[in-house]
Amino acid sequence: MLPRILLCNLRFTHEHLGKLFNGLAEAVAMDSPTRADFLAGFRPGGKYAGTVGVYRRNVISTARIGVFDTEVIDALAAGGVKWIAHNGAGYDEVDIARCIEKGIYVSYVPGVADDATATATLYLIISCLRNFSLAERSLRGHTWKAPVSARLHVSHDLTTRTLGIVGLGGIGLRLAHLARAFPMRVLYHSRSPRPSPEVPEWCTYVPVLKDLCAQADVLSLHVPFTQQTAGLIGEAEIRAMKPGSVLVNTARGKVVDEDAVIRALEDGHLSSVGLDVYPSEPHINPRLLAFPQAVLLPHVAGESGDTEVLREVRALESLSAFLKGDPEAGRDLVPEMKGMIP
Amino acid sequence: MLPRILLCNLRFTHEHLGKLFNGLAEAVAMDSPTRADFLAGFRPGGKYAGTVGVYRRNVISTARIGVFDTEVIDALAAGGVKWIAHNGAGYDEVDIARCIEKGIYVSYVPGVADDATATATLYLIISCLRNFSLAERSLRGHTWKAPVSARLHVSHDLTTRTLGIVGLGGIGLRLAHLARAFPMRVLYHSRSPRPSPEVPEWCTYVPVLKDLCAQADVLSLHVPFTQQTAGLIGEAEIRAMKPGSVLVNTARGKVVDEDAVIRALEDGHLSSVGLDVYPSEPHINPRLLAFPQAVLLPHVAGESGDTEVLREVRALESLSAFLKGDPEAGRDLVPEMKGMIP
Repeated sequence: MLPRILLCNLRFTHEHLGKLFNGLAEAVAMDSPTRADFLAGFRPGGKYAGTVGVYRRNVISTARIGVFDTEVIDALAAGGVKWIAHNGAGYDEVDIARCIEKGIYVSYVPGVADDATATATLYLIISCLRNFSLAERSLRGHTWKAPVSARLHVSHDLTTRTLGIVGLGGIGLRLAHLARAFPMRVLYHSRSPRPSPEVPEWCTYVPVLKDLCAQADVLSLHVPFTQQTAGLIGEAEIRAMKPGSVLVNTARGKVVDEDAVIRALEDGHLSSVGLDVYPSEPHINPRLLAFPQAVLLPHVAGESGDTEVLREVRALESLSAFLKGDPEAGRDLVPEMKGMIP
Repeated sequence: MLPRILLCNLRFTHEHLGKLFNGLAEAVAMDSPTRADFLAGFRPGGKYAGTVGVYRRNVISTARIGVFDTEVIDALAAGGVKWIAHNGAGYDEVDIARCIEKGIYVSYVPGVADDATATATLYLIISCLRNFSLAERSLRGHTWKAPVSARLHVSHDLTTRTLGIVGLGGIGLRLAHLARAFPMRVLYHSRSPRPSPEVPEWCTYVPVLKDLCAQADVLSLHVPFTQQTAGLIGEAEIRAMKPGSVLVNTARGKVVDEDAVIRALEDGHLSSVGLDVYPSEPHINPRLLAFPQAVLLPHVAGESGDTEVLREVRALESLSAFLKGDPEAGRDLVPEMKGMIP
């Protein structure tokens, strides 16, 4: 009998399954309506018995099963799961330390959504600087352009403005290139300056985060959510920004102190804010919704149809390579596991 | 007594008036609540008597006075007006032929809003391809990302898609450069291929408009509104486009057959539409508002605070140069008047 792989919310690429898993594994679709049912499936004789690999999708899988915390990881390990193929560039929904303890490898999907995420960030920057979200709501609310005209004094072109990028990974670097087209002046801060061949000479490294805040007309966040980045942008950083500047966050909600953002919108220190992520998604702080100039997306920056296909395939490829014993399986292991040979 | 200039809706640059007009003219603010009052002002002994130059702002001036048609032009000419400084890149609100008959020069403001307009066009392209307008409304309607997820199969990255630009003037060319950053593949159609030094080699000329329609994933319009461009994009052009493609219009509403657009949205031939302009602004066809995937801006593409300042100053400079007898005054004459020496 073939081992089984459990697909939690695969949507677009079922036609690839045959090519990737024929003769290697039987693919089973997760159908648990609740977390309890999901956990029970991995017990001896449960409906997911024999599962060695799990594909999961950030957020979507979480909606029914919840995050992959110690309870889930322990149940998977007890059931014989050896690999979690996580479809997402961020993997804070999976307890990596516990996976390491339990001998479960975790692959993720870095880079594939860089373009989609950077494009969404550019959209938020344009909308914040030009009041376009407000403009669309005004038109649909039958007031044509009245509230936008009233805010023309805080409506700006991107060209020649300064973009401050926090975290120059794949997404940050991609955004830098898009912003350069206008051109915006591009500054960045990261834990260390990146080696020169990757970073163009027009990206200027700013060693101190607060100095970056002070120089940026638009500050955009592109760091993963970790213990080190929780609350990275707080009251002090926001107050270091220029009056009338813009904060954009397509990283993770908890990287920013939301109360500090709301205070800065209330007293006008921030002209606008562009958010795709929130501390307790899908809950949105109702105080944020009250700001007409806020541009609020429902965590879709990394999601395009094109990207979803690429991501699913890449996540499944990791699982397939693992089952084949292909050393390529190690390519997309989460960084905490780099060097552990599957 | 100094001649007078009449300012119709000057908003941002009153502090420049001294420098531009001291000793040349007395600046008077238009305060007419109606067209009748405005026309009466130019009669002998009227409140605008002695006016030789008129500054006007597209759309805004029209709201109270109406377009500068033969009735207005004739009244201005009878009152002694010699120059209309029109603040706008498009000047279809001014009857140029009548101005020529009556000996009134008309300057406009080409180019200044190219960057703002191209940026807004890019915003519409991103929003249409990624369903972001729908996403924002979904979040504010408390349905998080549900309708966007349902449309993921028609959600696309810009990168590698084909942009078809109709009219490669200043705005079209600027958009080409922004789109190139992704890169998108850039094709264009215009009355004639532009001479090579202006157009990069990666912009491909397509001699027949329908061929451009057939190749574009996104078709974007950047032609002025003239008798030749009225209804340029009709049923035949839209049906020549690919199923699922996107139409973006930041030019003028009447360049497109709105009924044909609505039919193509209804049957899904067009995946989405991004509009900043409409045939009878500020009226919006309620059938357009019924499409959740439509991205609708209230004619703000060319309006940023930065741009408004530049435009007002440039329009006023034409008026000032005319009063000084400076040959520079001819720089921004509308093309129909090029060669007429003020």
